[in-house]
Amino acid sequence: MPEFELIKRLQAAICSESAPYQARCILGIGDDAALMDMPADRQLVACTDSLVAGVHFPPDTPPAAVGHKALAVNLSDLAAMGAEPAWFLLALTLPAADAGWLDEFAQGMARLAGDAGIFLAGGDVTSGPLNICVTAMGLVEPGQALTRSGARPGNLVVVSGRPGAAAHALHLMLSGEQPDATERAALDYPVPRLALGRALRGLATSCIDLSDGLLADLGHLLERAGVGALLELQNLPCPASMSSLSPRERWSLQLSGGDDYELCFTVPPGERARLDGLAQSCGIELTVIGEITSERGLVARQPDGSAWRPRKSGYEHFREDGVG
Amino acid sequence: MPEFELIKRLQAAICSESAPYQARCILGIGDDAALMDMPADRQLVACTDSLVAGVHFPPDTPPAAVGHKALAVNLSDLAAMGAEPAWFLLALTLPAADAGWLDEFAQGMARLAGDAGIFLAGGDVTSGPLNICVTAMGLVEPGQALTRSGARPGNLVVVSGRPGAAAHALHLMLSGEQPDATERAALDYPVPRLALGRALRGLATSCIDLSDGLLADLGHLLERAGVGALLELQNLPCPASMSSLSPRERWSLQLSGGDDYELCFTVPPGERARLDGLAQSCGIELTVIGEITSERGLVARQPDGSAWRPRKSGYEHFREDGVG
Repeated sequence: MPEFELIKRLQAAICSESAPYQARCILGIGDDAALMDMPADRQLVACTDSLVAGVHFPPDTPPAAVGHKALAVNLSDLAAMGAEPAWFLLALTLPAADAGWLDEFAQGMARLAGDAGIFLAGGDVTSGPLNICVTAMGLVEPGQALTRSGARPGNLVVVSGRPGAAAHALHLMLSGEQPDATERAALDYPVPRLALGRALRGLATSCIDLSDGLLADLGHLLERAGVGALLELQNLPCPASMSSLSPRERWSLQLSGGDDYELCFTVPPGERARLDGLAQSCGIELTVIGEITSERGLVARQPDGSAWRPRKSGYEHFREDGVG
Repeated sequence: MPEFELIKRLQAAICSESAPYQARCILGIGDDAALMDMPADRQLVACTDSLVAGVHFPPDTPPAAVGHKALAVNLSDLAAMGAEPAWFLLALTLPAADAGWLDEFAQGMARLAGDAGIFLAGGDVTSGPLNICVTAMGLVEPGQALTRSGARPGNLVVVSGRPGAAAHALHLMLSGEQPDATERAALDYPVPRLALGRALRGLATSCIDLSDGLLADLGHLLERAGVGALLELQNLPCPASMSSLSPRERWSLQLSGGDDYELCFTVPPGERARLDGLAQSCGIELTVIGEITSERGLVARQPDGSAWRPRKSGYEHFREDGVG
């Protein structure tokens, strides 16, 4: 399939006709660059993330899941900023122009783009080892973006959903076991928490999405604010798929396993009631798992009161031992 | 080198303190996404292009040239839209965290970012086969962006510089010869025509950058406008490195060889004088190489008046024969 036809095919499959900011994309695919008419009272939020086969997803991942996940990880970054999705660009590096693969990939990406209301404004297709690079652009009211830096001592540490299920599915696969469909879906089809991120504007003092693992990502919030945190391990909500694990096995995966794309955020201690209302209105479980401390460092406390730390603290590319 | 240190190193090397829109990047590297304060009276121009080793540059390309070119090809797209560079994102996929390679790569990218006045606002670093994906964001006055669609019969077809030198350098290398430093620089260090692109606002009726070859790229302008063109081959300006080639060898490389990143654009026939003034003020050679015709199709005419067409029309990923 020639490159031009391939692009047309992607465009036809992915461009969502009902995206709120489609009409503001004046020029899209087919020009040297996309041209967008910005709303007057919005700031621009932009992020880019690449997915590499064998690094970010197992080689046997269905193409629809690859398309979904490549967009989802970027939408998750918009969610963590409290931004509304507007447009995205897709730079696709493919080993071959396989029409079947491409159509499934596009369907997976299109479904999520439609759900999120984000419009494919342009991109690039080239040959090479499989690499999917998405750039997502979102909009936020001036001064309303969530950031990583505002956590204060006494703030509650909250997570959405039940982190750990994606890491557990990957753990099963690496151990030669086959996760069931629900377990595998946590890894293949993460749901970006866009509505929650929007609702956290004016409430959360800091926010991040869980891509590298709870310890690593919460660690970024603490470092940026110059504070610490005390986590109560017994408060970590347990994913259904992990109920048969020992507490330490489970905590280890929950704290150090990445790929959940839940949000971890901090709120002032007086906001518990608003938090409950939010959980209801967004239909997402929100759990207070700890508290920000003025003393730096992250302590995870077991039910018996003793501190505990898993051996591996989070996903790390380029580890010295080459395993990362 | 851990991922975080690697990102810090890139940031320290590449972030240009003097970029005009740096202050409007409110949050950059270190948050989930970049946050930008848009000027009120500008539209947003955004493009993304990946560079793959062995596809977009020979494997022996110096890291500084890889860094330069990954940004240059995107700046060239901004140039073709008449946009002013503002911010860029870098998604870097690396087989290993080689500090020496990375520092040279960053230096090459930083030099061009400084020249162009574009600010590194964020990105992503991951492990995998070498792939450099840049997303460039630029700004343009409402309604002033250059597009591909406005060519009219009678318009002059103009190119900047002397296209063909990059393709000639690659041709020499593929033939086992060693291009000299100047020849090789055309391939490794293309210069995006940003000032020219800005100056063409209100003058050019359509514009594109030459990435895939003159025939292919001019072909896009013709198709979008529903017109044709008559090129005078004798008018194609000859790069110094190609003066010893036969006319047909030269034309073939000039018409079908990509990677020049010169601009090809159309102007109304009465604008020759303005064109001359522009060439002087931008310090760039501008040559009228043909004329837009109402009859569709692209005809290249030899000095004897006969039409001529090279065998290969332009660079094409995913060709059926796998050579593309």
